[in-house]
Amino acid sequence: MAEENVIYVGNKPVTNYVLAVMTQFSQGADEVTLVARGRAISRAVDVAEFIRNNVMPEVEVKDIQIGTEEIETEEGDTISVSTISITLAKPSE
Amino acid sequence: MAEENVIYVGNKPVTNYVLAVMTQFSQGADEVTLVARGRAISRAVDVAEFIRNNVMPEVEVKDIQIGTEEIETEEGDTISVSTISITLAKPSE
Repeated sequence: MAEENVIYVGNKPVTNYVLAVMTQFSQGADEVTLVARGRAISRAVDVAEFIRNNVMPEVEVKDIQIGTEEIETEEGDTISVSTISITLAKPSE
Repeated sequence: MAEENVIYVGNKPVTNYVLAVMTQFSQGADEVTLVARGRAISRAVDVAEFIRNNVMPEVEVKDIQIGTEEIETEEGDTISVSTISITLAKPSE
């Protein structure tokens, strides 16, 4: 279940991802995990904070993990990119 | 003690902050906390990951917190900026 509720945060506006999170929760998800890498990391934090401050104050930050991914460039080089995953959870009723 | 070991991550190169963390630990700190806001958030994650992957593999991510700060612009407007704090810790010997 948890694995299905992953939202990959990229370069779109914050509100796009906020809506995606709200949709997941409204469809019955107990948890939604935001995943981002590189410069999109700060946008993933923006999404989580917008959710908590503006639309779903009952939602909690359940877990935050950081990591590193190896990515192969078009030139064949391997570069390291930082990643973040932020798990938001509704308190159980 | 912990409050003294805060490193504010801004727009300088990642290696500057990596050196600052290493210096704090070498001077006897048990914990070092990286604090960043806005776009510098992804750089703070880069610093933490570089420390763990490349220079101090024994260091653990002890805690990650996200939040929101209200900032007043030069025009007098108030804007919200996301923040992160990442606490790195040496395992006790």
